[in-house]
Amino acid sequence: MANATLTISSKNYSSWSLRGWLLTKFSGLPFDEVVMPADDPGARAELLLLSPSILVPCLFHDGIKVWDTLAIAEYLNEVCPDAGLLPKERAERAHCRSICGEMHSGFAALRSALPMNLKAHFPGFKVWARAQTDVERIVTIWHECLAQYGGPYLFGERSCADAMFAPVVTRFVTYDVKLDPDIVAYGERILAMPEMRQWIADAQQEAEEIDELDIEF
Amino acid sequence: MANATLTISSKNYSSWSLRGWLLTKFSGLPFDEVVMPADDPGARAELLLLSPSILVPCLFHDGIKVWDTLAIAEYLNEVCPDAGLLPKERAERAHCRSICGEMHSGFAALRSALPMNLKAHFPGFKVWARAQTDVERIVTIWHECLAQYGGPYLFGERSCADAMFAPVVTRFVTYDVKLDPDIVAYGERILAMPEMRQWIADAQQEAEEIDELDIEF
Repeated sequence: MANATLTISSKNYSSWSLRGWLLTKFSGLPFDEVVMPADDPGARAELLLLSPSILVPCLFHDGIKVWDTLAIAEYLNEVCPDAGLLPKERAERAHCRSICGEMHSGFAALRSALPMNLKAHFPGFKVWARAQTDVERIVTIWHECLAQYGGPYLFGERSCADAMFAPVVTRFVTYDVKLDPDIVAYGERILAMPEMRQWIADAQQEAEEIDELDIEF
Repeated sequence: MANATLTISSKNYSSWSLRGWLLTKFSGLPFDEVVMPADDPGARAELLLLSPSILVPCLFHDGIKVWDTLAIAEYLNEVCPDAGLLPKERAERAHCRSICGEMHSGFAALRSALPMNLKAHFPGFKVWARAQTDVERIVTIWHECLAQYGGPYLFGERSCADAMFAPVVTRFVTYDVKLDPDIVAYGERILAMPEMRQWIADAQQEAEEIDELDIEF
């Protein structure tokens, strides 16, 4: 029994659960998953952005509760400083936190129009103009990182930034977003990580379905 | 001439500019303000949430550019570790980052329905039900902090959390939100800080007006 637990909700739909779970996996901290059923009223309200996000993801460790995704990343970086969640060099760390912050607070149009849905595939999906602006900004962020730090991940080795953007990689596949080869290759590297393969396999097994996909989450 | 600059936009309307500016003031790092006019197309698009938030607030220091509010807080905490932007104790730090993260990514209904507008006052304003849910969550957060750490600020001494929630304090005044005495008193302490008085005085002098207040920012 690990002394850490991570509360998550749907593996198919909850992009914030995926981010928190990947961060904890990347940290190396052993943890037990606590999965809130998708029909739990609280988890459902969070998934549909009808309530503040305090239930998932939520990390309990060493008597401490951390319930925001970036706070989880910073906490894990303190507890597991050798895991590389944040780059070692100050300027790179500032860059990493800036793009993680952009993902944390922004891209509302993308989240609304292209919700994470790992079981689905929509060939030829038409991306709304404002969501397309978000797609282009994300592509710019990835190109700048891959050029500046040389890949294979955004800051060379895996960092919290890859966890923060991993749900976007899945959305680009689900909604058949047209991308250039370097961006496609980055996405393939994310999807090939053993942790992502495990998460996606678990999502495929999920029974719950959610109807209100017209509400952003 | 300070070797740091902080780019901000409207002091009357831009809550993110206020957060970044307070964080930098709290850090003690000398800096010059670069104010983007409210009619600058880029600044205007950010204010109206029509583009990613990469122009304001934006801190340049020591050859490093940091363009997300939480990333600015973490950067300043590294550069000025004695300024107390983050609590010294790990559990308190995790708590502080969790509520700062909630403010950073959440409360969309509050931001949409009660945009920051320091020059305005709307007695008897009717708060929409979903915005009221946000108000109640914020009041809970403040009560928990004030009870747990004893005040006068959220984590005892001033921290980044007070900067993150300062725009909410002004919204509660602008929109005449009914609050209990402890919460009113906390708000008064925030508004009485010399930095807040300076910011609000500057905002009163601003000439620009913005029409599209029906779009969230």
